[in-house]
Amino acid sequence: MLPRGRPRAMGAAVLLLLLLLVVGFFLFGRDPDYGLGTTATLDEDPYRSRNLSASSPQLLLPPKCEVMLHVAIVCAGYNSSREIITLTKSLLFYRKNPLHLHLITDAVARNILETLFRTWMVPAVVVSFYDAEELKPLVSWIPNKHYSGLYGLMKLVLPSILPPSLARVIVLDTDVTFSSDIVELWALFDHFSGVILLWLDRLQQTGWEQMWKVTAKRELLTLMATSLADQDIFNAVIKEHPHLVHPLPCVWNVQLSDHTRAERCYLEAADLKVIHWNSPKKLRVKNKHAEFFRNLHLTFLGYDGKLLRRELFGCPNQFPPGAEQLQQALTQLDEEEPCFEFRQQQLTVHRVHITFLPHQPPPPQPHDVTLVAQLSMDRLQMLEALCRHWPGPMSLALYLTDEEAQQFLHFVETSPVLSMRKDVAYHVVYRDGPLYPVNQLRNVALAQALTPYVFLSDIDFLPAYSLYDYLRASIEQLELDSRRKTALVVPAFETLHYRFSFPNSKAELLTLLDAGSLHTFRYHEWPQGHSSTDYSRWREAQAPYSVQWSADYEPYVVVPRDCPRYDPRFVGFGWNKVAHIIELDAQEYEFLVLPEAFSIHLPHAPSLDISRFRSSPTYRNCLQALKEEFHQDLSRRYGSAALKYLTALQQARSRA
Amino acid sequence: MLPRGRPRAMGAAVLLLLLLLVVGFFLFGRDPDYGLGTTATLDEDPYRSRNLSASSPQLLLPPKCEVMLHVAIVCAGYNSSREIITLTKSLLFYRKNPLHLHLITDAVARNILETLFRTWMVPAVVVSFYDAEELKPLVSWIPNKHYSGLYGLMKLVLPSILPPSLARVIVLDTDVTFSSDIVELWALFDHFSGVILLWLDRLQQTGWEQMWKVTAKRELLTLMATSLADQDIFNAVIKEHPHLVHPLPCVWNVQLSDHTRAERCYLEAADLKVIHWNSPKKLRVKNKHAEFFRNLHLTFLGYDGKLLRRELFGCPNQFPPGAEQLQQALTQLDEEEPCFEFRQQQLTVHRVHITFLPHQPPPPQPHDVTLVAQLSMDRLQMLEALCRHWPGPMSLALYLTDEEAQQFLHFVETSPVLSMRKDVAYHVVYRDGPLYPVNQLRNVALAQALTPYVFLSDIDFLPAYSLYDYLRASIEQLELDSRRKTALVVPAFETLHYRFSFPNSKAELLTLLDAGSLHTFRYHEWPQGHSSTDYSRWREAQAPYSVQWSADYEPYVVVPRDCPRYDPRFVGFGWNKVAHIIELDAQEYEFLVLPEAFSIHLPHAPSLDISRFRSSPTYRNCLQALKEEFHQDLSRRYGSAALKYLTALQQARSRA
Repeated sequence: MLPRGRPRAMGAAVLLLLLLLVVGFFLFGRDPDYGLGTTATLDEDPYRSRNLSASSPQLLLPPKCEVMLHVAIVCAGYNSSREIITLTKSLLFYRKNPLHLHLITDAVARNILETLFRTWMVPAVVVSFYDAEELKPLVSWIPNKHYSGLYGLMKLVLPSILPPSLARVIVLDTDVTFSSDIVELWALFDHFSGVILLWLDRLQQTGWEQMWKVTAKRELLTLMATSLADQDIFNAVIKEHPHLVHPLPCVWNVQLSDHTRAERCYLEAADLKVIHWNSPKKLRVKNKHAEFFRNLHLTFLGYDGKLLRRELFGCPNQFPPGAEQLQQALTQLDEEEPCFEFRQQQLTVHRVHITFLPHQPPPPQPHDVTLVAQLSMDRLQMLEALCRHWPGPMSLALYLTDEEAQQFLHFVETSPVLSMRKDVAYHVVYRDGPLYPVNQLRNVALAQALTPYVFLSDIDFLPAYSLYDYLRASIEQLELDSRRKTALVVPAFETLHYRFSFPNSKAELLTLLDAGSLHTFRYHEWPQGHSSTDYSRWREAQAPYSVQWSADYEPYVVVPRDCPRYDPRFVGFGWNKVAHIIELDAQEYEFLVLPEAFSIHLPHAPSLDISRFRSSPTYRNCLQALKEEFHQDLSRRYGSAALKYLTALQQARSRA
Repeated sequence: MLPRGRPRAMGAAVLLLLLLLVVGFFLFGRDPDYGLGTTATLDEDPYRSRNLSASSPQLLLPPKCEVMLHVAIVCAGYNSSREIITLTKSLLFYRKNPLHLHLITDAVARNILETLFRTWMVPAVVVSFYDAEELKPLVSWIPNKHYSGLYGLMKLVLPSILPPSLARVIVLDTDVTFSSDIVELWALFDHFSGVILLWLDRLQQTGWEQMWKVTAKRELLTLMATSLADQDIFNAVIKEHPHLVHPLPCVWNVQLSDHTRAERCYLEAADLKVIHWNSPKKLRVKNKHAEFFRNLHLTFLGYDGKLLRRELFGCPNQFPPGAEQLQQALTQLDEEEPCFEFRQQQLTVHRVHITFLPHQPPPPQPHDVTLVAQLSMDRLQMLEALCRHWPGPMSLALYLTDEEAQQFLHFVETSPVLSMRKDVAYHVVYRDGPLYPVNQLRNVALAQALTPYVFLSDIDFLPAYSLYDYLRASIEQLELDSRRKTALVVPAFETLHYRFSFPNSKAELLTLLDAGSLHTFRYHEWPQGHSSTDYSRWREAQAPYSVQWSADYEPYVVVPRDCPRYDPRFVGFGWNKVAHIIELDAQEYEFLVLPEAFSIHLPHAPSLDISRFRSSPTYRNCLQALKEEFHQDLSRRYGSAALKYLTALQQARSRA
């Protein structure tokens, strides 16, 4: 029996292969294409791989379009859901065959990965989900304390959840990075087919399930072990049944744990195929070649995933749902048209990674409110202050590149304030195109809010310290659950000072306002945006009061989470909130200003989009065109009731 | 004789190969390792490459460490210098052999690429430069109007400039992207060696140089051609001497011009090896697979070049100059030390791409001043306003990722204000690490300023409209060329308003100041930064006046361009300018405040670094440690003269 500390490296070295055998074994008998009794062709010393593409003489690779490669991965929780993306990118980067991913997930990972793959729209990739809950009872009797826990052990029982029609599958850990085409690994099935079938007979007599269970139980008894990881069990089974295993050439599992003997292998190899981050230290592992491996990993960590939306070249294409129509719509756009950029941006489907970081959904409470906002990298520094001002749940959409998403991760991890908060859900929407898709971002954040009410805010605003409590109390008092079409207005102010002492009450705010250190929001530049809020009435108000819509009104409001979505046609600067408020008004929401609510805008440099708006007549013309199209749609949907908005727009145009 | 329009595609298809043959030919006779008379092994139809790695059965690849691959590229001007980087990244990404780049460049490209490769520090890459000027006379007699001009024709005469010891070289255009290891292309030399030597005899009788010249001249005569591109000449030579050519498998030159017949090839191929953007439309080419190719190209366009600093795995390493020491210094840092991030950031060598965009150096003028500043993506929107306020030369360092550099390019190209200005030099310093390396950026911008004087400013400041003229006049009047150690102080103000009407004169500025719409810079938060400037004296001043250094003084100054550099140890927020002003004072610069000069800071959100400074005690402690080390160095260098700075620091500490 192997001891459990040191052989882990060896165990892992054969893990990949063993699973390949095991899963192959369970389903192999049904596949008559594999010739019985052919001999193994790959019996050479794996360390002699220099100058030989040992594992895969190219002529034996399957044809590029015809073979669907099957990959199974167990993935649970927020962090593994991030890891698996880097693995997938490296897979997709090198692959030239259609790929079927079989993902065994918990509810969290499934939620994240379903959205991700749907929006990723990679051609010739099929993703199937399997509920890991079903496997739990099969392995939960095994005491274990490995960091991957029960989910690690699930690899032992994978065959019982995968469809019987699946003849072969490659099982991967989430912490591996490919640096070559997985088809070369797939090709090993052919090399091994003889070997596998040879042992199949014997295996069938015992049954794999029986075999590992017996071994695991004996291990627990005889060694007084208190816990077992999957690899411990594999090691033990291998020890008893050495014929099960044919060692995988080491280049297919270059391990980076601290005590690995892998270096003997990889220094000789012509080519590394798969890097396995099987150390709890992961990227921070100390290894004299760590820098080299890290760079391979970072390549895919920061790789722009949208570039993997490329077709399988020369293969008949199998577009994911919607992708073909989208592609057609995009190619039909006229590049010479002045608003081409706007049209293109509107059509863009962004990859979306919901709950990028661990998140604790708020316990269900009937009057709870989620703050909803969106931001890009240049507003990260607002997050800490926002957390101090808003102790409740938040749903934030971040517009980032893949690389920025990693910077963001680092930022949160190194901030005590942010890393403490588990009720803030961060949703990464990946950048694509030159215009900020503000309303698409808002819709992502809004769709992920889990409380009955949402406070639709902007990232540059800090709410009154009391606002979260006050809103919940108001929602309860006003019995909003029985009058769903109400929008509570939170009056907006602004300061021009970087540092100022935030008012603790309405009284303090009014003092600052009178002293000129605070202003009502955009008082000088865009008074119509908030004039309906009626700040002078608000000064005196003791109770909520109703106000009427007027042109260009864009207050910050609290509404039920099933409120209308934002109109995604508005990209870049301008009119994106105005259109949403019109939609609320058209749907007969009542605007009710709260007498004690306020939020304050902090100064920042004008955004790139507002600068372009100001300096480019084309930009302004395109925005005008968007407005007009919006109004046409409005008339179509609301008929004569929408007339007042059009009239208001025309009046505004004639004034301009 | 082939007509010149349509066969360009075909000509280009054989171009790569032909050069391979031609250059091989010139130097081949000297290489006894190539067996005479061996037969060609690659005579199959290149379209039959499906499922065969036709061009390179892997077993024949040269061993990974031992063979140095030689690549020659002609590169001239700013835009080709950007193109060649994407090509190089794709080369480096897949290569597993040492690489020697032979770059035939004009002065502009050499200046850019020398800096780039020196700071890139890629192991196992040698770069040699050759002066394209030397080749010009050899081809300038050929009339041509191809977009690559004379530099395109230089490929005809490459052998005359490359060292005679060079046996074989692969010649590449700057607009190709590799999607496989170049060693596979190199391996074709072996396949062709027999063929090449066979034709060599014939070629030697004529001489290549003679051959193409005769053909080119006859072409010009008989076809009444007014211009020839290199490919026209190659086509004509090939037509006359078909034995010269062995067609390269099409996967090695997948062309994207509009009328290419390449699709016939690549739809069948298992693997595309090299993409050639040989259409004047480049990335915007209309081709039904354009999206696919674009993605391959964008992969390397946006690829983080620092990840290519990886060693050649398993090879004895040949570190570029300084890289080994740097690596050692980095590994000796203690990751648990609280200021680890600071230490690491200080040691980081950033890749630097000077003059990223076309630039017209200012004509030499004895009193000219360059505005020097640095920025990152979140300040791009300042550039247009800055251009309006400062009509003179600027040298700006931008801290960007590779991907952001492309966004920046797009931003400049779509801005009429910016694309008009050719006297603004943009230097890209590639991001690496979490702290903003402010002083390293300043030093890059400063080193690239080409006028005798520099105005050391910050990106958030807009200078008075008259400042550029006024500074030049003042420099002349004050006869600064004879009193080199003078620092002209430009008084700094700030506004808290996004939009405000910029004062056209000192009188207007004073009015705004009295009205409270303007303040002296950081009057409330950090008065000591500018108190020495003595604003009340400035109000009344009619002539320049001298002021004394005091603790924490950090004015914006105009100094000769050979002034002391900034101390690169200051990364992130804090004290970076203060240290520089101390250095000036220690070197006995006189601070002279200009009575009519001013510049105004615009509002923006606090940077990430200042936010971290404010919220993190560790950050503040690390800055304190940096200050103390700076003072120790100062004492070492200036002895007792540096005592006053230390005293001032200690007084400040005791006050804090």
